[in-house]
This record gives sequence, C-alpha cells and structure tokens, in this order.
Amino acid sequence: MAIELSNLMERSLSMLSSDHKSVVSMNLFVALLCACIVIGHLLEENRWMNESITALIIGLCTGIVILLTTNGTSSHVLMFSEDLFFIYLLPPIIFNAGFQVKKKQFFRNFMTIMLFGAVGTLISFVIISAGAVHFFKQMNIGTLKIGDYLAIGAIFAATDSVCTLQVLNQDETPLLYSLVFGEGVVNDATSVVLFNAIQSFDLSHINLSIALKFVGSFFYLFIASTMLGVIAGLLSAFIIKKLYMGRHSTDREVALMILMAYLSYMLAELFYLSGILTVFFCGIVMSHYTWHNVTESSRVTTKHAFATLSFVAEIFIFLYVGMDALDIEKWRVVRDSPGKSVGVSAILLGLVLLGRAAFVFPLSFLSNLTKKSSHEKIGLKQQLTIWWAGLMRGAVSMALAYKQFTSSGHTKLHGNAIMITSTITVVLFSTVVSHHHIL
Amino acid sequence: MAIELSNLMERSLSMLSSDHKSVVSMNLFVALLCACIVIGHLLEENRWMNESITALIIGLCTGIVILLTTNGTSSHVLMFSEDLFFIYLLPPIIFNAGFQVKKKQFFRNFMTIMLFGAVGTLISFVIISAGAVHFFKQMNIGTLKIGDYLAIGAIFAATDSVCTLQVLNQDETPLLYSLVFGEGVVNDATSVVLFNAIQSFDLSHINLSIALKFVGSFFYLFIASTMLGVIAGLLSAFIIKKLYMGRHSTDREVALMILMAYLSYMLAELFYLSGILTVFFCGIVMSHYTWHNVTESSRVTTKHAFATLSFVAEIFIFLYVGMDALDIEKWRVVRDSPGKSVGVSAILLGLVLLGRAAFVFPLSFLSNLTKKSSHEKIGLKQQLTIWWAGLMRGAVSMALAYKQFTSSGHTKLHGNAIMITSTITVVLFSTVVSHHHIL
Repeated sequence: MAIELSNLMERSLSMLSSDHKSVVSMNLFVALLCACIVIGHLLEENRWMNESITALIIGLCTGIVILLTTNGTSSHVLMFSEDLFFIYLLPPIIFNAGFQVKKKQFFRNFMTIMLFGAVGTLISFVIISAGAVHFFKQMNIGTLKIGDYLAIGAIFAATDSVCTLQVLNQDETPLLYSLVFGEGVVNDATSVVLFNAIQSFDLSHINLSIALKFVGSFFYLFIASTMLGVIAGLLSAFIIKKLYMGRHSTDREVALMILMAYLSYMLAELFYLSGILTVFFCGIVMSHYTWHNVTESSRVTTKHAFATLSFVAEIFIFLYVGMDALDIEKWRVVRDSPGKSVGVSAILLGLVLLGRAAFVFPLSFLSNLTKKSSHEKIGLKQQLTIWWAGLMRGAVSMALAYKQFTSSGHTKLHGNAIMITSTITVVLFSTVVSHHHIL
Repeated sequence: MAIELSNLMERSLSMLSSDHKSVVSMNLFVALLCACIVIGHLLEENRWMNESITALIIGLCTGIVILLTTNGTSSHVLMFSEDLFFIYLLPPIIFNAGFQVKKKQFFRNFMTIMLFGAVGTLISFVIISAGAVHFFKQMNIGTLKIGDYLAIGAIFAATDSVCTLQVLNQDETPLLYSLVFGEGVVNDATSVVLFNAIQSFDLSHINLSIALKFVGSFFYLFIASTMLGVIAGLLSAFIIKKLYMGRHSTDREVALMILMAYLSYMLAELFYLSGILTVFFCGIVMSHYTWHNVTESSRVTTKHAFATLSFVAEIFIFLYVGMDALDIEKWRVVRDSPGKSVGVSAILLGLVLLGRAAFVFPLSFLSNLTKKSSHEKIGLKQQLTIWWAGLMRGAVSMALAYKQFTSSGHTKLHGNAIMITSTITVVLFSTVVSHHHIL
C-alpha cells in the first residue's frame, strides 16, 4: 500500500516540479480563486450575484479565453475529475454543513427532513427515471441501458445543497432553511447511495429479489454510514476530553478534529459506504460534543476554519464547472443535433420540476398532520419555496453525470455526450434561474 | 496550461478512485497522523519526546512493518517526493513561522539574524564544502563532481528551523528564540537560494566571472524574493482594508489571506525565486498589516488555523522522513561498505559542528560590539546554545539531498546512495541528540 501512496504523491506533484507550465496553471487557478472572492464580494450589493455565480461566469470566461488561445484545439480545456471533487472538495463542504447546522431546528424537523431527503428523493428518482425511459426511448439518442436511465434519475434527483445554502438565510427563515438545507444534504447522501447501489447491481433484468437487494443495500449503506460518522465524532470528543488536549495547545485540538473528520470520510470510502453521509453526521456530532470540550479559541478557530475551507471548496467547484462547461469534444458530438440536445435538457428540467412537485406538496401535507402548532406547519408559500429552491442542480449532479457517462473524461458515445451536455445545461440554467427567483 | 492543470488533477487523484489500495494507504497515513498527535501529547510530560520525535519513531516502526509485510521486496517503501515537500508541506510551515514570529524581537535583532542567517550560512557552507572536498576525495566514494561538493555544503548548512522551533520557548528565552529561530528561517532561505544558484551554474570550472555571477544571482534572488513576499502581504492588506471584507464574512478574509500567501509562494516558484523567503516575509507583513485590518474572529482563526496547518505539516514531514528512512535500495547499495557510510556520516557531523562554530562565536562577538546594554549582548552560554540548537538537520536537508543525489527517487550511483544514507543518518542523529541536550 505504501507504494500506492508514494505513487499517489509523486503523480500528484510530478507536474509541479517537472514542467514549468503546470506552475503557471497553478498560479492561474489560485489567482482566479482570489478574483472570485474579491469580485463576488464587490457584486454582493447586487442581489442577483454571489460567489458561486461569479465563479461560474469567471470560469466560463477563462474557458473561452483558453479556447481562443489554443485556437479551440484543446478539446479538454479542463476535464472535470469526479475524484478531485469527491475526495477533496465535497468532504469539507458537507462536513461544514453538518458542523454549522442549527441542530435544534434540524432535529425538531428531523422526520420531515428525512421524509424529504430520503423518501422524496426516491419519489423524484422514480419519476425522473420513468420519464426518461418514456421520452428518450422515442427520440433515439444513442444506446442507453436501463442502468443509464436509473442513473439519470439519481443524477437529477440530487439537489445542490452547496448552492441551496446560499439562497436562504438561516436567521431570517430558520424553518425553511433547516428544511431545504437539511433535505439537500440528506438528499445528496441518498442520491449518491442510490447511485452506488445502481452501479453495483446488474440491472439488465430486474426482478423482485434484485429489487429487495437494492432496497436492502440502500438502507444498509444509509445506516452504516450514519453510524460511522457518529462514532468518529464521539471518538474525537472522547479523545479530546480524556486527554485534556486544551491543556496545552489549541492547534492539537483543531488538527485532531480535522484529521478525524477526514479519516471518517476516508474510512467510509474504504468500506464502500457513503462518505458524504458519514462526514455530515460526523460534523453534527463534533459540533454537538467535541466542540464543547475544546478551548474557547479552538471553538472560534474551528467554526471559521471549517467555514472557510467549505467556502473555498465551493468557489473552486463552480469555477471548475464553469471552466469545464466548454470542453469542446462533448459539444462537437452534439453539434450535429442541437435541437435534440435542447429537447433533452428541456425534458429533464420538466421532469425535475415534476418529480420535485410530486413529493414536496404531499410530504409537506403529511408532516403538517403531525405538527400541532400552526407556526410549525409548512405553509403553501413555504412549500413553493422548498419546491423551487430544490430545483438547483449543481456540482454533485455534474460529478455523478461524469461518473456515469464518461470513461476517463472522454465522451465518445453519442448518447453519453448528449447526457453530459444536457446535465451542464440543466446545472447552469437551474442554478442561475432558480437562484434569481428566490432572491 | 489548462491541460497541465487537468492532468495534474487527474494524476493526483487517479489512484484514489481507480484502485482501492490507495484508499487504504490514505487511511493508514491519516490514522498515523492522528496517532502521532495523541501519542506525542501523552508523552509530553517526558521532556525527551515531542511530536517530531514521536512521528519520526512511528514512521520508522511503520516502515519496518511494511518492510516485513512485503518481505523486504518493496524497495521503495515510501519515496520522499521533494515536490510534495516543497509545494505543499514547507510553505505553510515557513509562512506560519513568519506569521507567528515576535516582530519586535525579530527586527531588534534583525542585523544579527541576517548576519547569522546569510553570512553565517555562507561561512559554514564554504567550510563544509571545503571539508567535503578534502576528505571525500581521499576515500573514493563514487564520482562526485564539484557541483556535488558545493551541494553538500548547501545541504548541511541548512539548519532545521522546523525542529528548532520546538526546543526553545519564545516566552522564556525571547532573545535566544528570536535569534535561533530567525536565523533558522533566513538560513533555510539562504541555503535553498544557494542550492538553486549552484544547480543553475556550470561549476565544472570556476573562475572569477562565474563567482561574481554566483554572488550576483544570490543577492538578486534574495532581494527579489523578499520584495515579492512584502508586496503580496501589502496587497492583501490593501484589498482587505479597501473592500471592508470584515463587513460581512470572516471566511472571506481568512480565505483571501491563505490564498494570497500561497499565491505569493507559487509566483516565487514561477519566477524561479525562493518561495520560502517570499512566503516568510509575506507572513511577517500579513501579521503586521493585514492582521490588524480583519475582524476579531478572523484574528483568532488565522492565528490558530495557520499554526495548525504548520503543525500538521511538520508531523507529516517527520512521519514521512521516518517511513522513508528505510527505503531498502539505498541501504542495499551501501551495505557492502558500511564502515565507509558511517565514516562519511561522522565526517559530515564533524564538519557541521565546525562550520557552525566557525560563525556563531565570531559573529556573536561582532554583534555584541554594536550592542550597548549588556542584556542585549549574547552571553557565552547563549552562544553555545545557538551553536548547538542549530546543529539539527531536518526535512529541508533531506529534501535538498534528494533533489541533488536522486534521479526520480532512485539512487543507483554508489556515491549518491552513500550521500543519501549519510544525510538520513545525520538528520536522525542530530535531531534526536541535539534535541535532548537542549531540553
């Protein structure tokens, strides 16, 4: 294993030393990140903008510039590496989400959130998959297997918790925030779990036993991942409490928290669980137990350090998605049939709207039945907001789409190419539009 | 350039997704880091131990275990990648060093520190190089060119500021601390500058013009690097002050500081300057100007976040050095002549002692002449401490040694192999021993 690690390190850095160009690109990227923060801040008065959109736009511009400088020859301007995303960028975001969530609100609405996050995702997953089968079978867009259709369902059932976080204010609308955001995270986990489950099964011919296995593995993954996260969090609390880490150094405490959180994520990956769910609950437990056993300065540091990490990761992702959106190859493949691509995107958007409506309103109704006090109930207006806010499809969808429809970033197959481009379209469109509507 | 970046990202992560083994090794490494922190803390009462030594030992043990599990077949248990070190691990450490340094003390003793750091390093560099030429020419240890001898001088003129930091207390002995530590950093920079200068010149035949070019490039690198760091720091201060970053978010400020610090380092690399010196002065400027323009929570966060980063990076390095020390190949090469290897190590240690003595005492005397008040003068006991504390050779020496004497981690040549092994010996020995003596 040691060899793998050394290889990993070598590979990850061979470029940086070896050739000078990569240093240039590193500089470019870091500089762009800075630019996103500054510009995003300057445009903040303009409520139509925020760092994400800024990063998206800057990314697109950069992509265009690079395309022009390379005369459109570089067909892979910036390949989206779903590994970079899942190993380095997503963990801090989800961990921070769990760490910063208002637990009181979160657990008061726990059942509702679980309803939305788990059941709701399943519903929209089924609807989108069914719709995809129904529509795409007619318009021949390459060869899509049953697994692909289910994957499409999972991909577009994944709301973008990252982006959702930025359009609702935890203090102004605590209920809405906890619902939409909590759902977003559980939903992330759910759809990733779904996605893994799909990929790990032979779906050429479904029967009851497979369906049962499917459900079984889903719940296994869900519970096991949660448990792992909780255990990791409690362990960190125990260690820090028992060893009186605070006695000498804040740095040890912070370091230990970060390392153990990441370790929980990596362990989840090791056991083929859902690292997202794990690290999310690890974050919740850490903020609930560990956080109260550390020094005052540790509290401030962790609170902001984690937020910063997540903040940078988010910008990184949107910048990345923006730059990647212009990968020519995929577009070249669909250039001959633009109408079809647009059609697919439109259908997918419609299905997303439908699939979301199909669970937000019924489930809200259900949860309202359980609530006594009227202010705890979810009003129609709030339901609409939840419905709309959840339309955003972001980096998670992108990552999953690439995982399913590209082999090492290449999109040779016609159907796959269309799927990728449609995903990008949906992501860009839904992010920008539904964003603006809410604000 | 985009392509390079994408490649970089792909490479850096291809393993993590592709094969499962690497996830295992990631887990192992993160777990070991946690272990180092916890155990290091438990052993803290024992003044003979600290995280570094713990990490070193744990690393060695792990290396042994891996060797046994692979039946000694894996000749590269963990190749030390000087890139990983110089790109990811060293910057946070040096930046934090600059950020945390007591500026008042530092600048009061600035001249003395510069004397020690720059002139002193040059003196010991000359002595060690000369000594190496004198001794190693007799005992035939493979083919060493003049460049190699000069490299040896640079390598062993580099004290380990990382390790030095841990043996002196900034509050108990402020003068000593600021001197030894300040020297350590300037020395780091100096020796790296020296090293680069050596590598970038054809030294097969030295004459006056080349010598002058050498000195010139040395001063150019030194000044340019410092300037770049200062400018980057001031720019960050300007941006944060002008844009009132504090108005909304602490995270933006912290993110911007980290990113700009790293950017300064990468820019230095881009222009072939000394990133270390750049990021060190960037740290100083940031802590002096930027830090006073940010919110209170940003101050606490940056202070501890940077310290934590540096802390983890240090442990990482020592763990890594420990694991790497057992790379069989090098040892196999020198197995036939163990006595020679020991001899070389001994000679090098002696030269280090001599070279250090040759500038600490004279330069202390010089600086004492400039001081009026007696308590500012450097007493003999203090001079001894400075002399001894600077004996530690650490990760920097390792990294430089690998850079010079290995081609992509391989140590085929006899002379090179001996040099590497001797370096490891000197590092382990000096770290452990001089450490204990001081404490």
